Amino acid sequence: MIVPRLIERKREGGRIVEPEWHELIASYAAGKVPDYQMSALLMAIFFRGLDREETNALTDSMIESGGTLELSHITQARIDKHSTGGVGDKVSLILAPLIASLGVAVPMMSGRGLGHTGGTLDKLESIPGFRTNLSLKEAAEQIERIGCALIGQTKEIAPADRKLYALRDATATVEVIPLIAASIMSKKLAEGLTGLVLDVKQGSGAFMPDAERAQNLARAMIQLGADRGTPVVALLTAMDRPLGFACGNALEVKESIDALSGNGPDDLMEVTYALGAEMLMLAGAAAEPRDAWKLMQDSIASGKAMEKFREIIQAQGGNASIIERQDLLPSAPLNVDFTAKMDGIVQEVAPRTVGHGVIALRGGRRTMEDKIDPSVGFVITAKPGDEVRSGQPLASIHALDEAGVKEGKRALGEAIRIGEERPAFLPLVSVKITSEGKTRWERPEA
Amino acid sequence: MIVPRLIERKREGGRIVEPEWHELIASYAAGKVPDYQMSALLMAIFFRGLDREETNALTDSMIESGGTLELSHITQARIDKHSTGGVGDKVSLILAPLIASLGVAVPMMSGRGLGHTGGTLDKLESIPGFRTNLSLKEAAEQIERIGCALIGQTKEIAPADRKLYALRDATATVEVIPLIAASIMSKKLAEGLTGLVLDVKQGSGAFMPDAERAQNLARAMIQLGADRGTPVVALLTAMDRPLGFACGNALEVKESIDALSGNGPDDLMEVTYALGAEMLMLAGAAAEPRDAWKLMQDSIASGKAMEKFREIIQAQGGNASIIERQDLLPSAPLNVDFTAKMDGIVQEVAPRTVGHGVIALRGGRRTMEDKIDPSVGFVITAKPGDEVRSGQPLASIHALDEAGVKEGKRALGEAIRIGEERPAFLPLVSVKITSEGKTRWERPEA
Repeated sequence: MIVPRLIERKREGGRIVEPEWHELIASYAAGKVPDYQMSALLMAIFFRGLDREETNALTDSMIESGGTLELSHITQARIDKHSTGGVGDKVSLILAPLIASLGVAVPMMSGRGLGHTGGTLDKLESIPGFRTNLSLKEAAEQIERIGCALIGQTKEIAPADRKLYALRDATATVEVIPLIAASIMSKKLAEGLTGLVLDVKQGSGAFMPDAERAQNLARAMIQLGADRGTPVVALLTAMDRPLGFACGNALEVKESIDALSGNGPDDLMEVTYALGAEMLMLAGAAAEPRDAWKLMQDSIASGKAMEKFREIIQAQGGNASIIERQDLLPSAPLNVDFTAKMDGIVQEVAPRTVGHGVIALRGGRRTMEDKIDPSVGFVITAKPGDEVRSGQPLASIHALDEAGVKEGKRALGEAIRIGEERPAFLPLVSVKITSEGKTRWERPEA
Repeated sequence: MIVPRLIERKREGGRIVEPEWHELIASYAAGKVPDYQMSALLMAIFFRGLDREETNALTDSMIESGGTLELSHITQARIDKHSTGGVGDKVSLILAPLIASLGVAVPMMSGRGLGHTGGTLDKLESIPGFRTNLSLKEAAEQIERIGCALIGQTKEIAPADRKLYALRDATATVEVIPLIAASIMSKKLAEGLTGLVLDVKQGSGAFMPDAERAQNLARAMIQLGADRGTPVVALLTAMDRPLGFACGNALEVKESIDALSGNGPDDLMEVTYALGAEMLMLAGAAAEPRDAWKLMQDSIASGKAMEKFREIIQAQGGNASIIERQDLLPSAPLNVDFTAKMDGIVQEVAPRTVGHGVIALRGGRRTMEDKIDPSVGFVITAKPGDEVRSGQPLASIHALDEAGVKEGKRALGEAIRIGEERPAFLPLVSVKITSEGKTRWERPEA
């Protein structure tokens, strides 16, 4: 393998064949292929793309660079959910215990906040004592015992992907569909799943705001799953406004507890049930959406889902008393209402502006080294289309100090636009994509 | 300057502005911008190009990264010639003393063999004792004293270009016209020239076989010169067959001595005179080609050109007795004729195959670390269009051992094709390009 010749071939629109990918990625992970050759190749891939076989070979090579969750002795279905990332998206915290409470194994690997979006690991770590850095062995044992583990990408899983991801971030080669697909799927497939549900965000707050590109990414991941006999189903969901009310780590844990108590915001519950139904159907635990919704609603009403959440928190070293006593969660010293400046209709709650506002309050990272404070954030009850009156509270700002309150007001002042029009916004869940094609999503009748 | 944002901007087809280029290249030369970011940018430039201002700013930044030849106190015209590289191209060895013998300063900076092509430095170093690694100060003093120095790109000149060039070679980003133009011109402009003549090769043995691309490269360099008030003239010459007969370092020095003695092969002399005439006209030493040719022919006939070659060799520590005693040059132990296998017409003498044959004989490098043997190579007297008879010698093979002879026979057997057709080949010198435009080149009448 002569690396410059591989780069040249890709640059000219040619293909890199399977054994070359394996040698390339193994050599890269071992430090034998330098970053400067890999980054030139990544940029050539930006312009030339990867075909299906190449994306498969890259994915396999990255999986092989590390270990996998050994779950093959578990007879249950093993289903994970992955979101392309959004603001206020705490669905994983609710879905993992909810689906596990229905007898499906949920090996869930999550990430940290990235850009303007929050991360499930950061949210979980606002629970005092909660450990997300389980080893693969610990995670496998926990899944066997209680049906679920909520973990990060350990150093054991797809180290080549970790190294490549950091390189892509430093070389403006992140936004490449086959590379994103291979990166996500190399981690998900290393979990030993029998099925995967993707939450593909569209709208201004999504990493890929363009619905067409977002769907192409979904199709690439569905294809990678299909080629390995792992069914993947994607739902296209709205990220033109935050999901639910809470945006900020501990605040989102509180809202997740509300959701598991049966008191979650409508939009959050709808997206949770829609994704959960796909997980249950992939697992064979429900035949159709209506049955799946009923199962989930019953599990929440009976307290089974909350019991599973308690088990997971305890298994991972967290203080499960937070379920009854939310005051045990980190709480910001200042809590100030943000009110409407005029009568009118909420035109927009811009999720990127909200997400950057959380970062400004020190609830998110500007660089991977930043320390975050889990207590800060917003609870934004106003939604696009709501009629509001001047002086009415639209949100609360949870801040460390007055400067934070000021930052929060500035961010919300920019994010929440009030006007006279009836605003257009995206349907919460619009489309379902499988390897068979695309269909319109519809809420099952009660 | 946030480098990933610069890369992203170029990736999306945007521009990098002048102060950004200066900061980027200075930081890169200082090791503050890592190779992996630069190589991603280079690949983005491969796809997106650089406009005229960007190419200028890059060139300036690379010149500024090092020192320059201090020749501004020399009142003479200072003219160099640059070739895009070919097989059997020993024109520099003849032109430098020839033009210097006519009162024009020739600060000539050359390179080593690259790919299938030979390099002037390697050829010169086959002269026992000859030093090409003069410092800028030594070179300037020698030019002042005898009107010419034949040197390599010292560490002092455009170190950013050296670093970038090595990176491009390792990352398949060599073939990018603005990068090639900026690389060549940053070195040439650092010589303090008042004019430059480019020998742009076309045909199968050129680095850019496509005449249109080769001309675009010439135009980019002409533009860079014009933007600094340094006139640049390009001639498009044939590299669909080797130039002259000799291919191999010491063999080419011998042929250069023959040429300076008035006994050079016709094609070699024609290209030499054509390029030399442009140098003399840029210098104001001749008003039109006919005068220039006469001056050069007279200098060779009178022995003045050879005297200048002797001075240069002596000034640079070489043994000038090789001029009278060619046996003092390295000579291969085996010298075997290569003969025609059939009657017919020579269809082709493929220069790449010949060049790779010289490498196979150990006369060229596969990697920059390879040691070469200066004695080996070919003297190919057959030219496309020649009528030959079976058994007639077409070439001689100069090899270190029997294995080399075998390699040489294999290479020449592949390179020299005999058939029945009248072959088509490129005109030796076809087109002249200046900042004014392109004109047909014609040999001046005697």
